[in-house]
Amino acid sequence: MLAIGERINGMFKSVAAAIKDKNPEPIQELARRQLAAGAQALDVNVGPAAADALAAMAWLVKAIREVTGAPLAIDTTNPEVMRAGLELAGPGSLINSTKGQQEQLDIFIPMAVEHQASVIALTIDENGIPRDANGRGEIALRVVAAAMEKGLPTDRLMIDAVILPVNVAQATPWHVLETIRSVKLLSDPPPKTVLGLSNVSQGGRLRELLNRTYLVMALAAGLDAAILDVQDMEMMEAMIAAEVLMNHAVYADDFVKAYRASAN
Amino acid sequence: MLAIGERINGMFKSVAAAIKDKNPEPIQELARRQLAAGAQALDVNVGPAAADALAAMAWLVKAIREVTGAPLAIDTTNPEVMRAGLELAGPGSLINSTKGQQEQLDIFIPMAVEHQASVIALTIDENGIPRDANGRGEIALRVVAAAMEKGLPTDRLMIDAVILPVNVAQATPWHVLETIRSVKLLSDPPPKTVLGLSNVSQGGRLRELLNRTYLVMALAAGLDAAILDVQDMEMMEAMIAAEVLMNHAVYADDFVKAYRASAN
Repeated sequence: MLAIGERINGMFKSVAAAIKDKNPEPIQELARRQLAAGAQALDVNVGPAAADALAAMAWLVKAIREVTGAPLAIDTTNPEVMRAGLELAGPGSLINSTKGQQEQLDIFIPMAVEHQASVIALTIDENGIPRDANGRGEIALRVVAAAMEKGLPTDRLMIDAVILPVNVAQATPWHVLETIRSVKLLSDPPPKTVLGLSNVSQGGRLRELLNRTYLVMALAAGLDAAILDVQDMEMMEAMIAAEVLMNHAVYADDFVKAYRASAN
Repeated sequence: MLAIGERINGMFKSVAAAIKDKNPEPIQELARRQLAAGAQALDVNVGPAAADALAAMAWLVKAIREVTGAPLAIDTTNPEVMRAGLELAGPGSLINSTKGQQEQLDIFIPMAVEHQASVIALTIDENGIPRDANGRGEIALRVVAAAMEKGLPTDRLMIDAVILPVNVAQATPWHVLETIRSVKLLSDPPPKTVLGLSNVSQGGRLRELLNRTYLVMALAAGLDAAILDVQDMEMMEAMIAAEVLMNHAVYADDFVKAYRASAN
C-alpha cells in the first residue's frame, strides 16, 4: 500500500507558522520524520490561512524538495496553485484532488497528462456526496471515462470514495468498502483506490483504534493507498500485518522489521 | 459477531490436569473469565490426552453447566462423544465440527436437527484442504445441499473455510476471505461463517498482531463468528471497532465500553 503522509498541512499550527515565517526547518523535519516512519509520498497542503496560496505552495514544495525527491501529493482545489505545485514537484506527483464534475475533470485530468502525475478523484459531484456505493460507483465511472477520453492511463487514477466520520454517518464506512471493491471492475488496468483515513474518526474518541481498524478493513477490500498519520506506529504495524496477510508482502518471522527494511 | 472462547481445551496443560483430577474449579473459572471478557459461547474440547473421551466430555460439560447456560461448541470428531456433549449441553449448542465428506454430513447434520444445534462444517473433504476459494466453495455448496435435504435451516450451518498458518501457506488468508464472501451467495438465508482464528498465526511470532489484524479483515468480508482467545483485550477492542465500522453495533463515543455493557 502506498502510504501518503498527511502532516504537512497548514491546518496544523506549526506548519501554518512555518509558512508564515518562511522557516523551512519544521517542514523539512516533518518530511524526514514521515519518510522514516514509512511514508512513500507526502501530502502538501498550505492550509486555509495562507494569505497567498500560490506563493505558499511554491515555497512549501521547494523547501521539501531540498530534503527529498519522494512523490508529493499537491493538495489544493485551486488549479493555479495545483499547476505551480506540480511544476516544482516534478513528474510522478499526485493531484489531490479533483471532484467528479465534468468541468473539474476537464481541468485536472489534462493537467495530470501534461505533468506526468496521478489524479486523486473524489466521488463527489454537483449533487454532493452520494448516499451509497452505487452513487459513488457512478461518479467513479464518469472519472474513468474522462481519463480514457483524455489519454490518462486508468492506473494513474486514484478513486477516493470519501469516508465520513463514523460518529455522524455510521453507514458510510461500509459503503466506502463496497466502492473500493467495485471500482476495481471499472477498467483494465483498474483505477487505484485511496482513502483520507483520519476522517473516519474525526470528532470522535478512540480515534487511533478506529483509524487502524478501518485501514485494515479497507486493505482487505483492496485499498491501494491512504493519506494518513504514518507516525502512528500501531497503525503502521496493523497495515504491515494486513499486507502480509493479503500476500502483498513476503512473510518473515519479524515481518514488521522486514517490511520496514525493504521499504527503505 | 459471535465470539466463541477457545480456552476450555485439553491441549492446555491446566485443562488436561483438571480433567484428569476431576477438579471442576479451574474449568469453571475459565468459563467465567471468558464470558466476562466477551465470549458469547464456549468451545469445549477434551484434548488429545483424555483416556476416556466420552466420560471426559460429559464431565466437562456438566462442570461448565454448573456455572453458565451459555451455548457450548462441542469440539470433537467422534460422533458418540459429540452426542453425549450435545445431550448434556442442551438445545442451542454447536457441533464443532463436521468435514465435507458425505458420510460425515450424514451423521452430523441429522444430529444437529435432533439436538436443535448448529453445525460448524470445515471445507475439508476426502481430498484434503482445497488450494483456493473455489475448492472451498464447492465443499460449502455440498454442505448447504445436505442441510437442505435433511431439514436443517441453512442459517444453522457455519462454514469454516479452514485458515492455515500464514507462515506456511501465505496465500490461504486471502482464499479464506474470498470464501467468506462467496459463501453468503449459496442460499437464502445464507449459511453463517466461522473461523478458528488463532491458527492463522500458529508457529509464528507477533501472533497477537496477526490474530487481531486477520479478525478485522475477516469481519470486513462478512465473518459471523470466530473461535478465539477472548482474553486478548486488544483483539476484542479491534473486533468491537470493526463491528461499529460495519454498522453492526451502534456508535457511541466510548463504543468499546458501550458494546461490552450491551453484551452483558
